[in-house]
Amino acid sequence: MFDVQASIGPAHILKPDFGSDLLQELQKYVLAKNVNLAWISGVGAVSKAVIRYYDQPKKEWIELRLDKRLEVAGMWGNVSLLNGEPIVHVHIVLADETGHAHGGHLADGTLVFNMEILMTTLTGPPVIRKMDPQTGLTIWR
Amino acid sequence: MFDVQASIGPAHILKPDFGSDLLQELQKYVLAKNVNLAWISGVGAVSKAVIRYYDQPKKEWIELRLDKRLEVAGMWGNVSLLNGEPIVHVHIVLADETGHAHGGHLADGTLVFNMEILMTTLTGPPVIRKMDPQTGLTIWR
Amino acid sequence: MFDVQASIGPAHILKPDFGSDLLQELQKYVLAKNVNLAWISGVGAVSKAVIRYYDQPKKEWIELRLDKRLEVAGMWGNVSLLNGEPIVHVHIVLADETGHAHGGHLADGTLVFNMEILMTTLTGPPVIRKMDPQTGLTIWR
Repeated sequence: MFDVQASIGPAHILKPDFGSDLLQELQKYVLAKNVNLAWISGVGAVSKAVIRYYDQPKKEWIELRLDKRLEVAGMWGNVSLLNGEPIVHVHIVLADETGHAHGGHLADGTLVFNMEILMTTLTGPPVIRKMDPQTGLTIWR
Repeated sequence: MFDVQASIGPAHILKPDFGSDLLQELQKYVLAKNVNLAWISGVGAVSKAVIRYYDQPKKEWIELRLDKRLEVAGMWGNVSLLNGEPIVHVHIVLADETGHAHGGHLADGTLVFNMEILMTTLTGPPVIRKMDPQTGLTIWR
Repeated sequence: MFDVQASIGPAHILKPDFGSDLLQELQKYVLAKNVNLAWISGVGAVSKAVIRYYDQPKKEWIELRLDKRLEVAGMWGNVSLLNGEPIVHVHIVLADETGHAHGGHLADGTLVFNMEILMTTLTGPPVIRKMDPQTGLTIWR
């Protein structure tokens, strides 16, 4: 079990601008503010979404484009380091007008209608992503 | 990017009573305890649920009544200020006996079977909702 | 309303090993580290999943086996006490290659592909599960 202890706080209460790219805004924010370690939680709505599923045997991402207006039932993830820079990793659950829920890895192209996000900064040893041959992913090692 | 920094804690570990209205209980709690800024996360089960989807172009809510017993896969949201009073905003994902997931904005009429909720209080500048003509919603501004 | 106040932190940033049993690893961790009160949030992917739905009238669990590789859109839960020992209670939302979301109570038999988990320890009065005849569950009382 990979296990890093960190102290908690402060938090940033964030609302990316209407029409902006949800993941890109979070990524720009952590770079600008030097947030190297954090946990993310959020709710809201988007005007379109792009999510991804990882094909584990093929080690390839499958992109799913949801070209509709959706509630963000929730999003969660973290900030850690990749190649010395902070990187945002977020998963999301989206719900349509029937309540049907879709989920996956948040990708670029997801546009904010309204989002309410808590980014809780953490202070501890660096948590670093490296390419892992077994999974084909850049994961904590 | 709307950005408010806040310190974290203490937390309240909450379980609304069996049969009570999940959203109304949280709303009563923050009014009684003067919780003006907080983040919410919870899991559990409900005996029925009412959720909402926001029709963004029409600026109207669509109500979805799920008259069945459901797992609460998770709920997340926050407490901020509207017209000087704290208001609870929560999204939820519900799962039925086949595992199928439903999501949306938590509404009145959702009845607690058993819930386990963490309400993390935050201390910082007031976070205030105001009517936003662009979205038709009372959002942080 | 059951209501226990707790202070927050420190947090443990956890990644159970590839191929390990997600719930069992968390359970072993809290026993080994004497974590008696905590909140859990996580994202990632699993190579198979077992989730449960609680049939409220029958007071019986229904087990759902998802023998496929899935994104973990999110998982959330807590650590509290049962019979004097810490016990992990987690709910999960899983997403398949079409983005379809499944949710429920996390059970043994869910195998880690890659997981990124935040376990936030809480310090306060003991939070204790006891059998509740009304629900048939060991819940906070």
